[in-house]
Amino acid sequence: MHAEIFAIGTELLMGEIVDTNSAYMATRLPALGIELRQIRALGDDLGMLTDAFRSAWQRSELVLATGGLGPTQDDLTREAIAQALGEPLTIDSALKAEQEAYWSSRRLAMPPSNLRQSVLIPSAVPIPNPHGSAPGWWVEKNGHVIVSMPGVPHEFYQMWQDQVVPRLLKMPRGHLLISRTIKTFGQSESAMDDTLHHLFGKENPYLGIYAKPDGIHLRIIAKARNKEEGKRLIEPVEQEIERLIPDLIWGYDDQTPEERVGEALRRTKTSLATMESCTSGLLASTITDVPGSSDYFRGGFVTYTNEVKIAQGVPAPLIAQYGAVSTQVAEAMAQAARTNIGADFGVGVTGVAGPGESEGKPPGTVYIGLAWKGGARSITARLRFDRQLIKRRSVTQALLELRRLINEVHHERLT
Amino acid sequence: MHAEIFAIGTELLMGEIVDTNSAYMATRLPALGIELRQIRALGDDLGMLTDAFRSAWQRSELVLATGGLGPTQDDLTREAIAQALGEPLTIDSALKAEQEAYWSSRRLAMPPSNLRQSVLIPSAVPIPNPHGSAPGWWVEKNGHVIVSMPGVPHEFYQMWQDQVVPRLLKMPRGHLLISRTIKTFGQSESAMDDTLHHLFGKENPYLGIYAKPDGIHLRIIAKARNKEEGKRLIEPVEQEIERLIPDLIWGYDDQTPEERVGEALRRTKTSLATMESCTSGLLASTITDVPGSSDYFRGGFVTYTNEVKIAQGVPAPLIAQYGAVSTQVAEAMAQAARTNIGADFGVGVTGVAGPGESEGKPPGTVYIGLAWKGGARSITARLRFDRQLIKRRSVTQALLELRRLINEVHHERLT
Repeated sequence: MHAEIFAIGTELLMGEIVDTNSAYMATRLPALGIELRQIRALGDDLGMLTDAFRSAWQRSELVLATGGLGPTQDDLTREAIAQALGEPLTIDSALKAEQEAYWSSRRLAMPPSNLRQSVLIPSAVPIPNPHGSAPGWWVEKNGHVIVSMPGVPHEFYQMWQDQVVPRLLKMPRGHLLISRTIKTFGQSESAMDDTLHHLFGKENPYLGIYAKPDGIHLRIIAKARNKEEGKRLIEPVEQEIERLIPDLIWGYDDQTPEERVGEALRRTKTSLATMESCTSGLLASTITDVPGSSDYFRGGFVTYTNEVKIAQGVPAPLIAQYGAVSTQVAEAMAQAARTNIGADFGVGVTGVAGPGESEGKPPGTVYIGLAWKGGARSITARLRFDRQLIKRRSVTQALLELRRLINEVHHERLT
Repeated sequence: MHAEIFAIGTELLMGEIVDTNSAYMATRLPALGIELRQIRALGDDLGMLTDAFRSAWQRSELVLATGGLGPTQDDLTREAIAQALGEPLTIDSALKAEQEAYWSSRRLAMPPSNLRQSVLIPSAVPIPNPHGSAPGWWVEKNGHVIVSMPGVPHEFYQMWQDQVVPRLLKMPRGHLLISRTIKTFGQSESAMDDTLHHLFGKENPYLGIYAKPDGIHLRIIAKARNKEEGKRLIEPVEQEIERLIPDLIWGYDDQTPEERVGEALRRTKTSLATMESCTSGLLASTITDVPGSSDYFRGGFVTYTNEVKIAQGVPAPLIAQYGAVSTQVAEAMAQAARTNIGADFGVGVTGVAGPGESEGKPPGTVYIGLAWKGGARSITARLRFDRQLIKRRSVTQALLELRRLINEVHHERLT
């Protein structure tokens, strides 16, 4: 089945609002066996919208539209669909009653303009919107479907998740694309390419390799009639990869470095503290993006000046001798973090976020210190691009190096 | 002049790669006097691409396309434009020579497939691409223009900046849209609406009001023949707004809360320290996203547990009596940050990031403490949506409240 996605609203053409709904649907369609032909952002222009719906309706079996369902004169999605299909718009009494109930439940009189949200065409059934006043439309005719959803992300997301996906699953679909992403860290794309060369170049399952901020992703994509068949096709390739590069794999699919670190700390019943200079709290913040992280994360220091580093237990002579941006200071920061806060593991990050250089070291020079009961070690990273990206990548690498250490130490304990 | 933007490449439809080129052009077009009709992401499908170029060519004077200029069989932009305009593709000897020079300069033999990058149609002139092997196309015919640019962001950006914009400026254009954004904080959209009601509903300049994560934005948009005329139209409205809500305005256009805080600290030659619980370092990290922030930001604490809060100087009885999530503890955290680190201003943030509630307080309950030589005060925020958003909004509000305080204290000093 072929689909087209429309994002409707002039504000999307001003570059002000980023259209996250479309990209979200795009990532979900392959697993639904739906092939996406185009994503289109359109302004509030009845002529353009009508043409767009008409041509997509002729070309593709499915059109997924968000936006343009509000109560104002600018909200023209309903009118455009009606004109494209040549069907009349009429007020639906049941929808009108729901609209009035929605407003009275908020002890408000319904603005007359909201009547616009109570209309239907013969081929459309309303899709309830528990999070807003605008119902969606499911339009079905001669095997073609238009789904019209709200543009407000949380309203869209709920409607997509709870009501649209279940209906799409009932439609006749082609082959599903089932994928499995294996996330690795610590080896270059080309080195990985050599190690796994015999797995590339196959049709089904297809193996793709992608360089991402959190390492190299290996993606196995299988074309199958159902999930089970897809899994059967993927499994042997996945197992072969796990056999060849076991130590490089840190996660799968949607897993994040901060989640994996959290799991490792939970599993080993250990705790964590941080001391950050160039990342300046972004590491601590990323760790606590995981719900329940208070179970293993104790706290941290942001030591942006040498005075503060020294006050928090980094030996002044060390800074004098090696500079604040050094492996020695990174390890001392990690040690100080764990002893001051009383945690099993400590991480220290010091480096040059840029744009200028510091202590004669170029932007992107970052030292990651790791400390535990058994000692301390550090990793040197040379990162590129701008200040934000250097901070972000330092955090990712610190998390992945920490996870590796936790597993090592735990393994030592066990053996 | 009306324009349409095409982003070409099947990878854009997988939701893996985000199309930043299109949004970038969209933000630049209004000031060029060009009205954008749609943004379209299209796969590598010759039929779809040809239809898209043909219909856009008929409808709009300008089509801005990126992507599909590579050397492989999937790169079909050139073929699609040729078919849409009914013109033959022929190899251009000058382009071929350039291509060969490009490769020999890298001591490489040109892959035969790269001949695809040496073709032209009669209506096209090549646009040099100093950063890559694929030249762009400027196609002009009967007053309509198609610009074809590379999809690789840095290649696209340079070509747009150095070669496309200058050519666009030479074209007959309609009125320019000059805009000025006034960023406010501390009053609701509806209250603002009442205060400024007499300024809304005008045609030129038009005043728009937008609720954003960093407060309410007022956007004045003027239709003018040139920048100067635009400024002249905008100024009186801007001054009227500044007269009516002077205390609510925190910035203009691209300014960020962290930049404004940095400027205030610089101007008053004062320094800052932080202690964070629910934002867990995100405040410190955001402050240091500004280059040179080490001039005024000393450092901070991430006190994720009560033990760590107490260890850093928050009185235990206070936590026992009022709970860790309270105005009292927020102010104590701000004071402790300031005194422990030796800074003029201290900020403390404690709250419930969610998803669960804590100490019987719902997610989104956040207390922001501010401390300075003269004392301490706190603000209570009730924020919504998910964990990340609550953290992000807490940081924004903390920064804007801090800026307000710095200016007050500085003003007291002066008077």
